[in-house]
Amino acid sequence: MSIRFMPKKHIKGIKRFCRSLSLALLFLLAFKGVAIAQDPTWQEAYQSLQVTIDTVWVLLAGMLVVFMNAGFAMLETGLCRSKNAVNVLSKNLIVFGVVSLAFWALGFGFMFGDGNAFVGLNGFFLGGLDTSPLVGEAYRGVFSSLSWTGVPLDAKFFFQVAFAGTAATIVSGAVAERISFFGYFAFSALLSTLIYPIVGHWIWGGGFLSEWGFQDFAGSTVVHMVGGWAALTGAYILGPREGRYNGSQSEPIPGHNLAIATLGAMILWFGWFGFNPGSTMAADPAAISRIILTTNIAAASGAVGAAVTSWIILTKPDLSMIINGVLAGLVSITASCAYVGIGSAVAIGLVGGIIAVFGANFFNRLKIDDPVGALPVHLVSGIWGTLAVALFSVGPGVNPWHGVDSGPPLGLLLGGGFQQLGIQLAGILIVSLFAGLASLMAWLLIEYSLGLRVSPKAEALGLDISEHGLEAYPEFRNR
Amino acid sequence: MSIRFMPKKHIKGIKRFCRSLSLALLFLLAFKGVAIAQDPTWQEAYQSLQVTIDTVWVLLAGMLVVFMNAGFAMLETGLCRSKNAVNVLSKNLIVFGVVSLAFWALGFGFMFGDGNAFVGLNGFFLGGLDTSPLVGEAYRGVFSSLSWTGVPLDAKFFFQVAFAGTAATIVSGAVAERISFFGYFAFSALLSTLIYPIVGHWIWGGGFLSEWGFQDFAGSTVVHMVGGWAALTGAYILGPREGRYNGSQSEPIPGHNLAIATLGAMILWFGWFGFNPGSTMAADPAAISRIILTTNIAAASGAVGAAVTSWIILTKPDLSMIINGVLAGLVSITASCAYVGIGSAVAIGLVGGIIAVFGANFFNRLKIDDPVGALPVHLVSGIWGTLAVALFSVGPGVNPWHGVDSGPPLGLLLGGGFQQLGIQLAGILIVSLFAGLASLMAWLLIEYSLGLRVSPKAEALGLDISEHGLEAYPEFRNR
Amino acid sequence: MSIRFMPKKHIKGIKRFCRSLSLALLFLLAFKGVAIAQDPTWQEAYQSLQVTIDTVWVLLAGMLVVFMNAGFAMLETGLCRSKNAVNVLSKNLIVFGVVSLAFWALGFGFMFGDGNAFVGLNGFFLGGLDTSPLVGEAYRGVFSSLSWTGVPLDAKFFFQVAFAGTAATIVSGAVAERISFFGYFAFSALLSTLIYPIVGHWIWGGGFLSEWGFQDFAGSTVVHMVGGWAALTGAYILGPREGRYNGSQSEPIPGHNLAIATLGAMILWFGWFGFNPGSTMAADPAAISRIILTTNIAAASGAVGAAVTSWIILTKPDLSMIINGVLAGLVSITASCAYVGIGSAVAIGLVGGIIAVFGANFFNRLKIDDPVGALPVHLVSGIWGTLAVALFSVGPGVNPWHGVDSGPPLGLLLGGGFQQLGIQLAGILIVSLFAGLASLMAWLLIEYSLGLRVSPKAEALGLDISEHGLEAYPEFRNR
Repeated sequence: MSIRFMPKKHIKGIKRFCRSLSLALLFLLAFKGVAIAQDPTWQEAYQSLQVTIDTVWVLLAGMLVVFMNAGFAMLETGLCRSKNAVNVLSKNLIVFGVVSLAFWALGFGFMFGDGNAFVGLNGFFLGGLDTSPLVGEAYRGVFSSLSWTGVPLDAKFFFQVAFAGTAATIVSGAVAERISFFGYFAFSALLSTLIYPIVGHWIWGGGFLSEWGFQDFAGSTVVHMVGGWAALTGAYILGPREGRYNGSQSEPIPGHNLAIATLGAMILWFGWFGFNPGSTMAADPAAISRIILTTNIAAASGAVGAAVTSWIILTKPDLSMIINGVLAGLVSITASCAYVGIGSAVAIGLVGGIIAVFGANFFNRLKIDDPVGALPVHLVSGIWGTLAVALFSVGPGVNPWHGVDSGPPLGLLLGGGFQQLGIQLAGILIVSLFAGLASLMAWLLIEYSLGLRVSPKAEALGLDISEHGLEAYPEFRNR
Repeated sequence: MSIRFMPKKHIKGIKRFCRSLSLALLFLLAFKGVAIAQDPTWQEAYQSLQVTIDTVWVLLAGMLVVFMNAGFAMLETGLCRSKNAVNVLSKNLIVFGVVSLAFWALGFGFMFGDGNAFVGLNGFFLGGLDTSPLVGEAYRGVFSSLSWTGVPLDAKFFFQVAFAGTAATIVSGAVAERISFFGYFAFSALLSTLIYPIVGHWIWGGGFLSEWGFQDFAGSTVVHMVGGWAALTGAYILGPREGRYNGSQSEPIPGHNLAIATLGAMILWFGWFGFNPGSTMAADPAAISRIILTTNIAAASGAVGAAVTSWIILTKPDLSMIINGVLAGLVSITASCAYVGIGSAVAIGLVGGIIAVFGANFFNRLKIDDPVGALPVHLVSGIWGTLAVALFSVGPGVNPWHGVDSGPPLGLLLGGGFQQLGIQLAGILIVSLFAGLASLMAWLLIEYSLGLRVSPKAEALGLDISEHGLEAYPEFRNR
Repeated sequence: MSIRFMPKKHIKGIKRFCRSLSLALLFLLAFKGVAIAQDPTWQEAYQSLQVTIDTVWVLLAGMLVVFMNAGFAMLETGLCRSKNAVNVLSKNLIVFGVVSLAFWALGFGFMFGDGNAFVGLNGFFLGGLDTSPLVGEAYRGVFSSLSWTGVPLDAKFFFQVAFAGTAATIVSGAVAERISFFGYFAFSALLSTLIYPIVGHWIWGGGFLSEWGFQDFAGSTVVHMVGGWAALTGAYILGPREGRYNGSQSEPIPGHNLAIATLGAMILWFGWFGFNPGSTMAADPAAISRIILTTNIAAASGAVGAAVTSWIILTKPDLSMIINGVLAGLVSITASCAYVGIGSAVAIGLVGGIIAVFGANFFNRLKIDDPVGALPVHLVSGIWGTLAVALFSVGPGVNPWHGVDSGPPLGLLLGGGFQQLGIQLAGILIVSLFAGLASLMAWLLIEYSLGLRVSPKAEALGLDISEHGLEAYPEFRNR
């Protein structure tokens, strides 16, 4: 989804089909029932059908990403305790509502609206000129950074709002079982209107990181690392759940329903088939086929990597580790899914799966309490995935959708140089600093105004009763 | 899905591409391997590809609507008690089977077959002439009311049978925990062969309401209000569950599993991306992008509206209210999704979400026992959504897919007149009378022949044991 | 998905559009941004768009088949006991990971790579020449058996790897609650690298059964019968669960969560809309519309057939029977879905639903312990579905996608002859012998090397604790 994705020559190729742009516009209007003076040419008809197919693809992908909310909801609920299930479910259901409204009003404009190198300043409430699905030089409007994709503006927004929802949902798991409902509600609004869109502007909105050549195809950095920093700062400020650490002792708190947690992981695996190949925002058959393959095999490798690692380290194949291995594999491949070979995707996913196991241990030692394992999955694998672009990219000229003057150069491990690794590292550093600090400020702002953590009594009772006055499973007897 | 959806000029535009219909037919056959005498022209090739894309879109949408059965099943099961879970699950699983057969045999012919202003009289068992995917004047066959969409008849039927299943499933929740399995089975067959198709014929099948200009794009009236009246009459005739009302006292009976109920709502949200934008029955990129956006933001607004309302009224953000707010937002936008702006969609969804909270209270005061909240969601929001068309429509000439001679006029709140509101009100009244009375008769017919309500003993024991001899969760100990 | 699916005349038809293959190749490259010397013709543009639509369709179908893993996981977990839930979930999550890697490395080459009549010997690790999406005589490469479908190789592989995962997952349910995690892991690898690909090569990979004219459109034999034999031999060798049979007495062991089991069945119903119509591997609008319809109505008929049969035989409509009726209907229609009319699909599904009830009884009498009913669903209905092709096929010349020189002849029950039935029976016999014996050897190999069954103590304790050290529902008190 890099703005550098579409090779300029590709745009030229399309333009050759449509020698007169005014004619093309007339043609598009003609198909909508507006009278025209002239019959369309086949080149115009071709272009119109291409727009249609691309739109169907982008909308399908967007739907799948929206459905990921169900995956996150089941995953997080299953990995928390039943006394907080209603709260986790409520958060996951309402957050996409809040993000849908906030990203429409402000976030999308900050992220993709024309502005400066730091932030977009146009297109709030989807307002302003926009001649989508015209592309490239034919495009006129306030969302220039999305002018490389030939679908209607509404389709672009739908796909992007689904992404924004994902970033906000990532936070939910790490702060679960102790955050107040309203505090989470407020943070989600800040994240999706300000923090996420600003970083997104840098990388996908024509900002300075995209100018530097930073590469993040479908969002290992933009979505997962940003969500991961918000999660880490939130978990840190909130502190661990009561009873999670006794002195130097770590007391695991098992999730209450691994059936729905596994279902959640499988829904996420399914949803990622929208997340990654949809980020082409065009139904290029070779590109989307390859991306779906790298995505799938990285998830598979993540599962196997985490299963084997946990088998060796923990002596048993731990289901929650396999679940997080799948997700870590998916996050790891997200930045590079369009640029790497299948063997490399296996390696990237395997490392992701291993990270899921060791990363959980790492944060546990730091006494950062992360009930669902969001930090190794989204933050650490997000960093790993961003670096992997510079290590494994096949470079230009191999895949037709990866033009000679766009996309990452040949990866370091395949014989390339260190330059891209430097750019990726710089981007990771800058985004980490900004996302970490901005999230910290947002959490502190909420803490000192509305309050962030529920009372110890409410926490002991469970947030379902204290915050919602409901139980998730009122008929079943707990141990 | 109004038959008035496709502007006549659009049809003309397509026809210009295909000057000789006989040639077009030859072309379509040619692509199927039948020898032809002549090479196709690019206009014919264009048309063939358009049919292909439209078909893929309609089938995708139909699949999503079928998948809504899983959403309804989880929603209803989760909001009922565990002793009736097997029964609710069985009903939801079997009902789509019954509807699939009944709607094929009879319902589709009554709804879309050529006939009179009241009912279709052709096309039972999908029989009779049909030259789909030819459209408009080129179409010959017994399903003229669907001749505006250029996809194969099988695709039209698949999408419509999924819709019929939805109408039948709506009923299930309101009559849950006390209806006999066979009684529900029988009512589903009557609803999907007679009641739903007849109303559908009036509005989408070329009947008198479509002649009047009644507007219901994707079924706030046809599907949700009809299902809602069937639900209301059923719940009324059955009476409340034992113990639900003690004298003037209302005793809430909480659902047994809010995790799967939330999952159900999220599956329904996902499925609605087929329900609404699929009702174009054509992959018009601008139309489907806009519809998916109005649909999504209305769901989001419904969630926020219900959360805030329940927070204020009930002092706590009630998860079951947020769930029903999402659904109410979706039902509310269904009639107008193709005709309104995004800001209007926010308003429509917000009101839907507020309705979900107050509506639940309303029916509760009437001592109509509706275990899952189907009535505020489908009946009241269905009425609201049908009215909203006349209030918020942008009117012709704004969106290209909304031709000057089709679709609703400018909405009352945007400066339009009262005429469309009158038509919508008349339609609501007539449909309510018919659907209410016909459902009532169907329920009474079943009650006095097969019996409708299980015995008090069976109800106390739970329908799972009494009707199915099975428990849903045999290993868990109840409180 | 028969290699005979695409009529040769169809291929000729396409070729007429593209008189010069070198031009076509240039054209495809041109769209990828590589400079060309010459402008494309509309025929080339048409072909490029057709490839795009076909690819979107195949990828969508493949995604749905991958999502079936979630369906199988919920189905099997729900129908087993809670003490083995983590184990069943882990198996279902890891198996697709293992298959994704194994089928990429070896299985796909054995199945579709060029080789001899018995096995493919090229294309391991997706290596070797391949000029997809070029089709027919224009194709050059090592996967000739898939050269009838004009999509990129990556898309072909993605769809096929999802299928391979399904075959492996079928086994899981029949051997549940007593197999060691590692034993299942190892068998999955053998099945997906050797047994499934070899049978697949015979039927879909250009092997001897396809030469004989054996017909299996979407895999009643290739996927379900092969999976079924692996399941039967596994269940036989493992023996029944402790306490399942006391002397001549059969003691049913009820599943612990019928809500998620029903959800699983509904996800599978949804996923089958990829499994069957996706097996066209091309978005032929008439074909995919018909296939989705036969698939849906067979599932519906299976549900009704099993509900009525269990109502009569067991006196109550048994939910687990309805669930298996749906699946049996789906498996039954899988071989013939492209070749039969809708009425025939009803008959095929109904018989499948009846088989689900009687078949469960049959294996129970043989004391083959099959916790989830995989054998009647996949093995018996797989055989029935394979025979149904020879009984109900409409024969060539009726449906445009079923050319005069491809697909099965007129079915026996519609007035055709016995020849195809003989071919189908011969194929069933040969596949059964091979799949049965090969699976048996694989199971025995594992049993005598790594061990297959957990200890009685571990089985009594539950595999969750003994194999994974985790509980699925640690908070709920069991009876």
